[in-house]
Amino acid sequence: MRHNPFTSAFGLTYPIIQAPMAGGATTPELVAAVCNAGGMGSFAAAALSPQAILDGVRRIRALTARPFNVNLFAPRALQASAGDLTRAHELLAPFRAELGLPDPCTPDKFCENPADQIAALIECRPALASFTFDVLEADDMACLRRAGLAVMGTATNVAEARAWQDAGADFVCAQGGEAGGHRGTFLGDFDQSCIGLMALVPQVVANVRLPVVAAGGIMDGRGIAAAQVLGACAAQLGTAFLCCDESAISAAWKRGLRAAGDASTRVTRAFSGRHARGVANAFMDALRPHEHELPPYPVHNALTADLRAAAARQDRPEYISLWAGQGVPMLRALPAARLMQLLVEERAAALAQVE
Amino acid sequence: MRHNPFTSAFGLTYPIIQAPMAGGATTPELVAAVCNAGGMGSFAAAALSPQAILDGVRRIRALTARPFNVNLFAPRALQASAGDLTRAHELLAPFRAELGLPDPCTPDKFCENPADQIAALIECRPALASFTFDVLEADDMACLRRAGLAVMGTATNVAEARAWQDAGADFVCAQGGEAGGHRGTFLGDFDQSCIGLMALVPQVVANVRLPVVAAGGIMDGRGIAAAQVLGACAAQLGTAFLCCDESAISAAWKRGLRAAGDASTRVTRAFSGRHARGVANAFMDALRPHEHELPPYPVHNALTADLRAAAARQDRPEYISLWAGQGVPMLRALPAARLMQLLVEERAAALAQVE
Repeated sequence: MRHNPFTSAFGLTYPIIQAPMAGGATTPELVAAVCNAGGMGSFAAAALSPQAILDGVRRIRALTARPFNVNLFAPRALQASAGDLTRAHELLAPFRAELGLPDPCTPDKFCENPADQIAALIECRPALASFTFDVLEADDMACLRRAGLAVMGTATNVAEARAWQDAGADFVCAQGGEAGGHRGTFLGDFDQSCIGLMALVPQVVANVRLPVVAAGGIMDGRGIAAAQVLGACAAQLGTAFLCCDESAISAAWKRGLRAAGDASTRVTRAFSGRHARGVANAFMDALRPHEHELPPYPVHNALTADLRAAAARQDRPEYISLWAGQGVPMLRALPAARLMQLLVEERAAALAQVE
Repeated sequence: MRHNPFTSAFGLTYPIIQAPMAGGATTPELVAAVCNAGGMGSFAAAALSPQAILDGVRRIRALTARPFNVNLFAPRALQASAGDLTRAHELLAPFRAELGLPDPCTPDKFCENPADQIAALIECRPALASFTFDVLEADDMACLRRAGLAVMGTATNVAEARAWQDAGADFVCAQGGEAGGHRGTFLGDFDQSCIGLMALVPQVVANVRLPVVAAGGIMDGRGIAAAQVLGACAAQLGTAFLCCDESAISAAWKRGLRAAGDASTRVTRAFSGRHARGVANAFMDALRPHEHELPPYPVHNALTADLRAAAARQDRPEYISLWAGQGVPMLRALPAARLMQLLVEERAAALAQVE
């Protein structure tokens, strides 16, 4: 396979990135298996303490000598009023009751401290750090660059890709509307920034000098080839790896994914306060008319944390965030190395069939 | 270029379809120019009387001997209550006032009679008839087949593609969430059926035996190649042809398109009562909080008809339906034959750059 600026930068055999996914999916075992198979694994660290990030990276390094990616959020410090919190608790109360949870208490902190997480990254120095939710502050970017990390920013539209370029990123990940999990949108309207890869990739490629990675709805080698034909230098696949043997997502999540069809997912704020795509379930349906009343991320995310954890323990997919992209029915439950092999074969076959 | 079931069926040189688009875009001149350049032109006939369909087809035939497509809607007969109509008139009143229009009267009929339109198709026998909004009744399908027309149905999800297959269609057009103009969704949730082509094409291909055409956000030869890599036998491009020399859309529409960025479009019910993607403008923004109150298509479409016509005459893009897909900034104002030539060259180049 011909090299490009992304594969060359990291000595990858294949232009394939396993996407960072929260909730237990991106175990050190999954990340390392993808790296060892010639792609780039990504460790989702946004919800982790600095110590957990260091531990995870140590474990990945014990399993592979290849470069890998660690992903963080770059959230704005958003607050919620006492009234917002009361209303959110009120909306969540029936679900807490159903799951046998006690009355809620508002947590002391809503998320890990981003500065401490970045300090952990600088300490453990993965080859690549990727970010979503906003562009990095100049200071953070400078520290990461000085420490020798490459930086990839997530963009859902051209303005965001330009913002990452201006901030000094090395790569931009164009997140299509097809993508599962949280939307990276930070400039402009969320609906209008839910842009399919077919339209998004060529426009981002035309408007930034950075190499562009395509993410969203890519489930097999045809999608990887199509992303490259559109101008991307690599494809980032999340949902495709969600049920790999090395993924540690809950049985309930897996069950929810297996039941999903092509028209089963939609974007919701119900779980975290931030727009994210998942398989529609009873929780999403019940909160659909109230989404505008929910507090922003990370506040609402913290408020639903024990509820989601309890639902996973109790094997109740109807109450957990079943993050998944629009290609979810195409996922394959295989060892990651075997999936990588299939992706590479399918990619070649897809290109060969079109002349 | 290798032939496939679509190009073979019609003797096309290239797997490129110019999409049917209402509002004056698909003139007989545009349709014929695309056909003469080796692709397939489509004549948008949904808003036309049977006589206008016959006249248009006659004019196309005077300009080309090649096969072409005529598109109709297959709308369900939806009604609106007197209360719905009153509320819609109330919501539209400020815009009518702004445009100097008299008090509205509810029209006698809301759309052309679909049975009469199909009779016109059977009389003039284009090589292909395509349909959107719903699956055809068995009787209509049988008449079209007996008359020798091939039939293509529009699907926004796998269930709809299967419905068209079961109804006896020859081809299915997979309409991605990127697509401009009306959404074809007729089974299931509109939001959940706004599926990007990257995820939609492989799933439709895997689930029906029919050859699949890809539509939505395809603006250049890279997109055509990508659609084929994903498994489509042809690509249908609408927005890409919207500003061709042969297109007769209003100056206001063209101006609205030129001002659009990648994140300028969204899906709205504001203009027609049916979900459709266009460049956001003042009219869409004003009605955004009231979309659930609007009557269904074709009722609301008829109520806004003189308002849209007046806005176009007065060169007011802020009040007309600026239908466009998510790739709108990539459109090129060229003669259709030149655009076709570029598409073919770009397609080859895109495939050649990926190995």
